[in-house]
Amino acid sequence: MLEQYHLKYLHKNILEKKYYTIQETALRHFTEQIFRAMGCSEEHAVLSADVLIKADMRGVDSHGVARLSGYVRLWQKGRLNAKPVMRIIHETPTTATVDGDQGLGLVVAPYAMKIAIQKAETYGSGWVAVRNSNHFGIAGYHALMAVEKDMIGYAMTNASPLVTPTFSKERMLGTNPMCYAFPAGKYPPVIIDMATSAAANGKLEIAQRKDLPIPEGWAQTSSGLSSTNPNELKQGGSLLPLGSDRLHGSHKGYGLSATVDILSAVLSGANYGPWAPPFVSYLDPVPDPVGLGLGHFLGAMRADGFRPIADFKQHMDNWITRFKNAEPINKIQPVIVPGEPELVAERERSISGIPIIEDVWDDLKKLAEHLKVDHL
Amino acid sequence: MLEQYHLKYLHKNILEKKYYTIQETALRHFTEQIFRAMGCSEEHAVLSADVLIKADMRGVDSHGVARLSGYVRLWQKGRLNAKPVMRIIHETPTTATVDGDQGLGLVVAPYAMKIAIQKAETYGSGWVAVRNSNHFGIAGYHALMAVEKDMIGYAMTNASPLVTPTFSKERMLGTNPMCYAFPAGKYPPVIIDMATSAAANGKLEIAQRKDLPIPEGWAQTSSGLSSTNPNELKQGGSLLPLGSDRLHGSHKGYGLSATVDILSAVLSGANYGPWAPPFVSYLDPVPDPVGLGLGHFLGAMRADGFRPIADFKQHMDNWITRFKNAEPINKIQPVIVPGEPELVAERERSISGIPIIEDVWDDLKKLAEHLKVDHL
Repeated sequence: MLEQYHLKYLHKNILEKKYYTIQETALRHFTEQIFRAMGCSEEHAVLSADVLIKADMRGVDSHGVARLSGYVRLWQKGRLNAKPVMRIIHETPTTATVDGDQGLGLVVAPYAMKIAIQKAETYGSGWVAVRNSNHFGIAGYHALMAVEKDMIGYAMTNASPLVTPTFSKERMLGTNPMCYAFPAGKYPPVIIDMATSAAANGKLEIAQRKDLPIPEGWAQTSSGLSSTNPNELKQGGSLLPLGSDRLHGSHKGYGLSATVDILSAVLSGANYGPWAPPFVSYLDPVPDPVGLGLGHFLGAMRADGFRPIADFKQHMDNWITRFKNAEPINKIQPVIVPGEPELVAERERSISGIPIIEDVWDDLKKLAEHLKVDHL
Repeated sequence: MLEQYHLKYLHKNILEKKYYTIQETALRHFTEQIFRAMGCSEEHAVLSADVLIKADMRGVDSHGVARLSGYVRLWQKGRLNAKPVMRIIHETPTTATVDGDQGLGLVVAPYAMKIAIQKAETYGSGWVAVRNSNHFGIAGYHALMAVEKDMIGYAMTNASPLVTPTFSKERMLGTNPMCYAFPAGKYPPVIIDMATSAAANGKLEIAQRKDLPIPEGWAQTSSGLSSTNPNELKQGGSLLPLGSDRLHGSHKGYGLSATVDILSAVLSGANYGPWAPPFVSYLDPVPDPVGLGLGHFLGAMRADGFRPIADFKQHMDNWITRFKNAEPINKIQPVIVPGEPELVAERERSISGIPIIEDVWDDLKKLAEHLKVDHL
């Protein structure tokens, strides 16, 4: 079963029974149209589509156009502002807090990252906490904005509560991703972009569609018992933190998720822990919020703030070469440098197009009809 | 077996067969004497002892006086400078790189953290990479220096290679700890201080002394096979990253460890990956270093750089209260807020003294004889 899962997750959609393939430009055009139909400005529509398409191109299918109808439903419920007036509400030379005015995280996070980069250009580093935002797509998109300026990029966000702390059966934390991105020289950047749960919710969804049990260590029942049921979350169960159980370090995954929650939401004035607003529109936000919307945390540090950029890049390349050549257990599976699989997907999909599974395809079709936009 | 382990690790030394108990002040005095005998300045001897004693007080026995003879042996081999001249070799208003002049990490890291704090006082945040250092003790000590100034503290270090990347059988990374520490109001600070491996080496050592198998997911053989042998590392095996296997997210633990390695060593000009110098003196450093010594990375951000400090602390307290009250799976084991177990140990040990297991006791006795210092 291990091997079976392994293969499946390296290929994701490719092994789904039925899917459509679409070229990047067509999907991008469609996605921009949807955001325009929501009332987003031209700039925001183009940027939001760019963040989602980047996820699809990089093989992170759970965070691409598969989420488009989710954003639209939040907007229709009045929980998402298509015309946000974002602003800095607190700052020092290298820190700031941004209020996202309930906008799409897809535009609020880049706005905040630009501020972090500007501060880093002047002072060496810049750090921006964000409140009153929504789901920001893939963390890697925002961190890569810093990498393009030869900076180290840092992006995280809290999210709807689905994960239990160690020893608990209550959903207290989101899958709270953290991302670090480092520029390199001749190689593409090293990008660590990871949910702090043992498995992302998207992996359970794949198992659901295939009627396959999930491995132990991903989820637990509402009573806190180990579960292999891919539908466990629908029955009040929860995801487990990275480490899965206490013996294998789940308190570390919980600690990392707590770090993301505090930096993104306690620091910014957003909702933290179980108060974080749900992404799905059929669940109402809690009646007693402790802050505004969802929170993010973004950072940029100039690599040449620590050593000459040529030295840094040369040693990054040496680091990458050495890790690529680390002795593999099995020669058919060499060691992967963080960020490589996403890059491979991006190269493949720029040629062969983006695979869209039938469920998502149908969802996009309905969305197009509903918003009177030409379907793909 | 799960329960058995669980209990054991919550109590650590207490369940060892034979141990001595000693009061903090006596152990501190003894430790200072050892550092003085090495030729450390009065200031450095007091500080180094403080870092080690803090570990023992907080129940992190693997990083306290148990390591004292290790530092002495490195010094005797000429790989540790007892009189370092530390200096900034590169900087911007909020970033710096420090050369530790082969000093004790126990003094180099606090030196670097002070610089980070000073920069944060002026500009909101400060970030210091360190090269040419040695083992810095517990990361939490350094991060807490920032917390005392109402800042968020950040400390990490790379370490001797013992951990394999996902898919590899080659030791490429240390247990590379990362620590985040947050000030609170009425509660003690929240401190996430964790090795990025599934289990720390100290846990294997406990199993060795008790002749107990270790759980699967902690270590693998030199061929990359799953192992339950607590002596596996002595036979060329390796520790596994947090997540244990690919299916449970070992690529995330590997990514976190890589982050620590890059920030601590590639950014600073220290040795990274498999080039990191071994802590044990009987292993020689590699003949082809890529940098100087071991590396650290320290940071401080003013909490009031993001929102008024009273608001931040109030919400930290609310976060802590809510997490302490998260519904437990079993009422006898409430949810733990990161940093609580260390604080409980500190309170207990300030009254009942520090338990020192026989092995360490004998080691300290030999050390005292060797350096002509009065034994405890």
